[in-house]
Amino acid sequence: MKHLEEKTLSTQQVFKGRYLKVEQDEVQAPDGKVYYREYILHPGAAMMIPILPNGNVVMVHQYRHAVKQVMLEFPAGKRDRGEDSLITAKRELAEETGYLANEWKLLTEIHPVIGYSNEQIDLYLAMDLSRTEQRLDQGEFLEVIEVAPKELMTLIQQGKVTDVKTQIGAFWLDKILRGEWN
Amino acid sequence: MKHLEEKTLSTQQVFKGRYLKVEQDEVQAPDGKVYYREYILHPGAAMMIPILPNGNVVMVHQYRHAVKQVMLEFPAGKRDRGEDSLITAKRELAEETGYLANEWKLLTEIHPVIGYSNEQIDLYLAMDLSRTEQRLDQGEFLEVIEVAPKELMTLIQQGKVTDVKTQIGAFWLDKILRGEWN
Repeated sequence: MKHLEEKTLSTQQVFKGRYLKVEQDEVQAPDGKVYYREYILHPGAAMMIPILPNGNVVMVHQYRHAVKQVMLEFPAGKRDRGEDSLITAKRELAEETGYLANEWKLLTEIHPVIGYSNEQIDLYLAMDLSRTEQRLDQGEFLEVIEVAPKELMTLIQQGKVTDVKTQIGAFWLDKILRGEWN
Repeated sequence: MKHLEEKTLSTQQVFKGRYLKVEQDEVQAPDGKVYYREYILHPGAAMMIPILPNGNVVMVHQYRHAVKQVMLEFPAGKRDRGEDSLITAKRELAEETGYLANEWKLLTEIHPVIGYSNEQIDLYLAMDLSRTEQRLDQGEFLEVIEVAPKELMTLIQQGKVTDVKTQIGAFWLDKILRGEWN
């Protein structure tokens, strides 16, 4: 695949907002010419599928201003700089939902925005749950709900779960519950 | 879900790069306080799952500078302003892969970046394919390959297909080929 790669010639931060940072790289493409590539610099994130003893999953309803909708999502959060994503996952699960998990399993890593962000999200299964206290960040508003995995697949089929990380988590869980993937 | 929503108080474009635009909105949150939300303004995109008469799907290998990797993806492209996503899908399929499709079906719509972009991607099945000519954009380099749907699911399980739109398309195709979804 080497022949498709681009060589970075220079890197420049062109925007720093309250939350977002944009980098602009000058690259040399396979045709030898120089192009510009712009992308969001992101620290990465962790998402978890918390499974209750009754088989239901813990999810959140959260308003997302970028798409101006309340979304049904698996809990997730941004990594602190250099933080292992499992640490992020444990912290965010507790903060957002008030649950602790004793058993964790990394399922896979995904790239949500390959066109314009370096974000990577690590997807975990979180099992053997116990209660602690929900501690939302300032400016964070969400509601915790329980959903049966079968119901979640129906909602996806109906187009009611459009968040990609959540859809991918649900499909992985579906494969695992069928015994096709482990 | 009204009680989770935020009210937009003002909107300001805070960055305009070569490709990316960032908007900063002042919002009033459910606690009555004012917060800032930043996000990429995106025209939306279309992705297609092109199915060959032999049952294989048409995919592309493309270097993505934001994640500095060659990715295995379904063909996709950005909508022109106000363009119907089916028009985008037809154009991008032809340009990227050199295929025309006579039969199209909208599967679903997804939001890849609810934290910081208003992007929506419409996912299509593209069937009854015939050949035309590949016409890549300036600065676009990709290779077209054929993949068997079963092999694609194995690659996903192995963590080798991390692009979210492609993974979701593969999972939908898997459901359809099993006769579980139509």
